[in-house]
Amino acid sequence: MKAEIIAIGSELLLGQILDTNSSYIARCLADNGIEIVQTTTVGDDLTRIEEVIQNAITRSSIIVTTGGIGPTEDDLTREAVSEVFRRPLTFQPHLMEQIEALFKKRGFRMAENNRKQAHIPDGAIPIENPKGTAPGFIVEYPDGALISIPGVPLEMEYLMENTVIPYLRKRFDIKHQVIQYRVLRACGLGESAIGLQIKDLMKGSQ
Amino acid sequence: MKAEIIAIGSELLLGQILDTNSSYIARCLADNGIEIVQTTTVGDDLTRIEEVIQNAITRSSIIVTTGGIGPTEDDLTREAVSEVFRRPLTFQPHLMEQIEALFKKRGFRMAENNRKQAHIPDGAIPIENPKGTAPGFIVEYPDGALISIPGVPLEMEYLMENTVIPYLRKRFDIKHQVIQYRVLRACGLGESAIGLQIKDLMKGSQ
Repeated sequence: MKAEIIAIGSELLLGQILDTNSSYIARCLADNGIEIVQTTTVGDDLTRIEEVIQNAITRSSIIVTTGGIGPTEDDLTREAVSEVFRRPLTFQPHLMEQIEALFKKRGFRMAENNRKQAHIPDGAIPIENPKGTAPGFIVEYPDGALISIPGVPLEMEYLMENTVIPYLRKRFDIKHQVIQYRVLRACGLGESAIGLQIKDLMKGSQ
Repeated sequence: MKAEIIAIGSELLLGQILDTNSSYIARCLADNGIEIVQTTTVGDDLTRIEEVIQNAITRSSIIVTTGGIGPTEDDLTREAVSEVFRRPLTFQPHLMEQIEALFKKRGFRMAENNRKQAHIPDGAIPIENPKGTAPGFIVEYPDGALISIPGVPLEMEYLMENTVIPYLRKRFDIKHQVIQYRVLRACGLGESAIGLQIKDLMKGSQ
């Protein structure tokens, strides 16, 4: 079972902020024996996001996207997913209620564009987000699933642990798979000399 | 002029180490007005590296790869580039001499597999690396260039600054281009409310 991670946001692409989400998600997946074949970072550009998602679903069964599901004009992940899977965005009243409740609890007036966040692709499984205003969603496709979660690290980490991993374990019947790796510590030798000594071990790895 | 960054190494893909190289390279390029359209991380897998490079060269004029040019069995970047561009790896005696001199200076015996690092794709421009044993190289293609540099941050940063950026400025006649961005600081408003207020500004950006 192959997985890919797609981090979405021009601020990542320009190197303005460091992408720590991809490696967090990668560790979560690897800890559950899921093989990651690629991670991609793409900017807030609808066509490019669509292309990256389209390519990913032809290769891999599990796609996790992070970022681009906020309330503003440049948040385009849900539009891109909607387009790729040809599933129109549909309004989910219960997601709207949760978003409104969060604003009320925090004492802020909800802006009109937050309504956008209560829309998910038709037929997608909503991912409720008690930590923020951006609900995630899961679009299932034959033999696979695309999971979109926010880019805010606190929210992303909470949703990975509490929703995404439990969903994946159930959906793909993941039980005792692990990716084994061994850290070999060496002293006094360069990489090349060590490489020669463990040549046979490296050939046996995948 | 579009650019892509490809970070190569299974340790990045598994989230064992954080990829700080891509954002460093991204900032270097952006500071010179070069638009980055995608960054990709891929493991030490020859076929996957080839696919990622092949896709990148169809989209972008500047490709920077980092990592996978060490001396060991799992370092496959030069093999992948050689394959994609159909340029056999050729031995460069002057690169070998530099690698040997570095080992001598550091008081280490050179391992046989370091000879691999003196091979670059036929016709490629070598990038000498005074900071380490992995020389980089540039493969020029119609309207574009693929630049392979090491993944060791110290070496990568040195080569970006001293070789890659000067090469790109000359090759693509980059003078006074810059990517402009503005940091707007706000207080007391949520992202959604700010988004509404600067909607017209976001529409004007690219």
